[in-house]
Amino acid sequence: MKGIWTYHALLPEVENRARMSLGEGHTPLVKSRFIGPSLGLNNLYFKLENLNPTGSYKDRFAAMALSRFVQQGIKVCLATSSGNTGAALAAYCAAAQLPCIMAVVDGAPEGKLQQMRLYGAATLMVKDFGKRPEVTEQVMTMLGRLAEEQQTSVQISAYCFCPEAMAGVQTIAYEIAAAFDGGTQVFVPAGGGGLTLAVARGFERWQRQYGSAGHHVVHCVQPMGNDTIVSALAGGEMHPTAVPQSTTAISGLQVPNVLDGFEVIAACRRSGGTGFGVQDEQVWECQDWLAKKEGIFCEPAGAVALAGVRRALAAGALDPDRPIVCLITGHGFKDVQRASVMASTSANAYLANEKELKNYIIQLINK
Amino acid sequence: MKGIWTYHALLPEVENRARMSLGEGHTPLVKSRFIGPSLGLNNLYFKLENLNPTGSYKDRFAAMALSRFVQQGIKVCLATSSGNTGAALAAYCAAAQLPCIMAVVDGAPEGKLQQMRLYGAATLMVKDFGKRPEVTEQVMTMLGRLAEEQQTSVQISAYCFCPEAMAGVQTIAYEIAAAFDGGTQVFVPAGGGGLTLAVARGFERWQRQYGSAGHHVVHCVQPMGNDTIVSALAGGEMHPTAVPQSTTAISGLQVPNVLDGFEVIAACRRSGGTGFGVQDEQVWECQDWLAKKEGIFCEPAGAVALAGVRRALAAGALDPDRPIVCLITGHGFKDVQRASVMASTSANAYLANEKELKNYIIQLINK
Ligand SMILES: Cc1ncc(COP(=O)(O)O)c(C=O)c1O
Ligand SMILES: Cc1ncc(COP(=O)(O)O)c(C=O)c1O
Repeated sequence: MKGIWTYHALLPEVENRARMSLGEGHTPLVKSRFIGPSLGLNNLYFKLENLNPTGSYKDRFAAMALSRFVQQGIKVCLATSSGNTGAALAAYCAAAQLPCIMAVVDGAPEGKLQQMRLYGAATLMVKDFGKRPEVTEQVMTMLGRLAEEQQTSVQISAYCFCPEAMAGVQTIAYEIAAAFDGGTQVFVPAGGGGLTLAVARGFERWQRQYGSAGHHVVHCVQPMGNDTIVSALAGGEMHPTAVPQSTTAISGLQVPNVLDGFEVIAACRRSGGTGFGVQDEQVWECQDWLAKKEGIFCEPAGAVALAGVRRALAAGALDPDRPIVCLITGHGFKDVQRASVMASTSANAYLANEKELKNYIIQLINK
Repeated sequence: MKGIWTYHALLPEVENRARMSLGEGHTPLVKSRFIGPSLGLNNLYFKLENLNPTGSYKDRFAAMALSRFVQQGIKVCLATSSGNTGAALAAYCAAAQLPCIMAVVDGAPEGKLQQMRLYGAATLMVKDFGKRPEVTEQVMTMLGRLAEEQQTSVQISAYCFCPEAMAGVQTIAYEIAAAFDGGTQVFVPAGGGGLTLAVARGFERWQRQYGSAGHHVVHCVQPMGNDTIVSALAGGEMHPTAVPQSTTAISGLQVPNVLDGFEVIAACRRSGGTGFGVQDEQVWECQDWLAKKEGIFCEPAGAVALAGVRRALAAGALDPDRPIVCLITGHGFKDVQRASVMASTSANAYLANEKELKNYIIQLINK
């Protein structure tokens, strides 16, 4: 039994018999071969959270959530999700033989819903849920009550709702700390901010436990169309701000509510980190670069950290001697539309015979 | 630098500066929680090769192939593929800054071609290539000549074409041998048979190097619609047989040619293993089981090994005391059509408000 349980000493206690793993975590840390050097950064690394079992870092959350369910004898999983949390919970529920019922936000991408259903989860979309605040609140209140009646709890990947399960996500920081004894600068994409907080808390926990020499700086990156955290963080303020209407198209980072924002601002600042806002176009460009220059295929949200590195570089806010780690948080297969846009720039032909093929190849080589 | 290079002592020599890795290998070995016990098998494991960087075990091949290219200063990659090899080569070529030109079989699934292109590879389909033997031969001959002129070689994932790069695939056996000192029974899906041969040779190599106690039995599994190897192997014969027309729908296992078949038969037999033929329907059923009962999402070819275990069990050919390992060779996202079939059996609804949602959830729970 490996997965997140490698770090069981730093996790909420779960009996051995209840611990679940589908092979989450221990994700590769790949050194940039092209983008880093071409930016003058010889120490740029990508942490490939997209290679988790269901294609995102949320598997670390789900592994902890479902293990606790098994331990407590809980019989059903209720959750809300716009995508990756739902896929992760659906898979771990399947492995735990638990029914998984997902209330999904109105307009959630069909591809992500399909991923939940193929593991057997029910996906229930409610009109205006996640769009109109009063509907969202009604649904959340109802789910909370229903969960209590059913002796379960609603799973949402944020500390303000599910702090114990979020502890599973802190294992990202443990893996980075174990690999870089001398410290790093980590760039983390944020929606509600739970992931960023998990990384920052993880480093603090590691430091308390092992008192290692290296210091890790945690930077938060958001699309400017939903800058609930980063503008306040960069501006020296304490308070995150809900945005009236999120305008970013980056799936997974559209939550306009302040969830873990307060704690994120404090924790990033304690680490010496700050916030960076990026444009959606820069994110897509980074996503395409990662595929074509590094061989790494991620969803748009997974390229946000790299876009943040470019902003930090332009702002002169990078320490050139300290390794830089970008969290690549989700897999490219999550967003089929972007995949087809990315593919459209490469040569593609149907040829009549081997002579035509030969000519075509020679043309390509001589280009 | 980890990836396949953890086992550099057992791999063809590549200088340190040329070694490439995108985080391939070190894939999880997950113990079955449901399917194994429900079949009376308490020692059933899944080796999750679907979690490799491009979603299949072919990344181990591509890591070795491109590292050798870098070492030798080769400037272009020519290859043929129906899917997974192409995606793997495309990604590692991107990371190595090499152009990647893929001659693809007529009718190769568009989703897999798109994956190659998004990494920047050119996908060139030739009429009747891979369908009519004379066209296939013309194309292969032309590619071989062209490769020579361009001081490169055509990459195909089989020992009969690319033995050095296939050595990268042997790391699957090294990882299993390192995890199970006492030996295992491994079930491997086969098309041309290169993968099965890599696993069998890997165990032999490990044994020569470390002389460990455990013995590993290697079983080969094929769809009956393309049983080039398994029928001969199970029937006690030495010779594989090309099938006139492959009738299986399992993508990746449709190669009707005998590629590494001779050596596969000999190697499986030496290990004490045999061949199992399975029906496509059984494969799809296993694919659906893996998702809904174990939380593992693989492409159909990735579920073939489990279908083989069921056949072996029915035939009384399993040793109940020796751990059983199924190679889950490719990721479910490779086959979007099957994903939507698998999703179609789960509940999916659009509800008007939170009251309707509540009623729907209560119905689901009480079912
Ligand atoms: C791929 C991906 N990256 C990053 C995040 C951001 O996480 P958080 O909302 O905790 O800030 C999410 C959240 O859904 C995600 O799916
Ligand atoms: C997912 C998957 N599994 C198994 C195989 C079988 O490999 P081989 O042709 O070497 O037998 C392939 C080959 O393409 C594959 O793509």
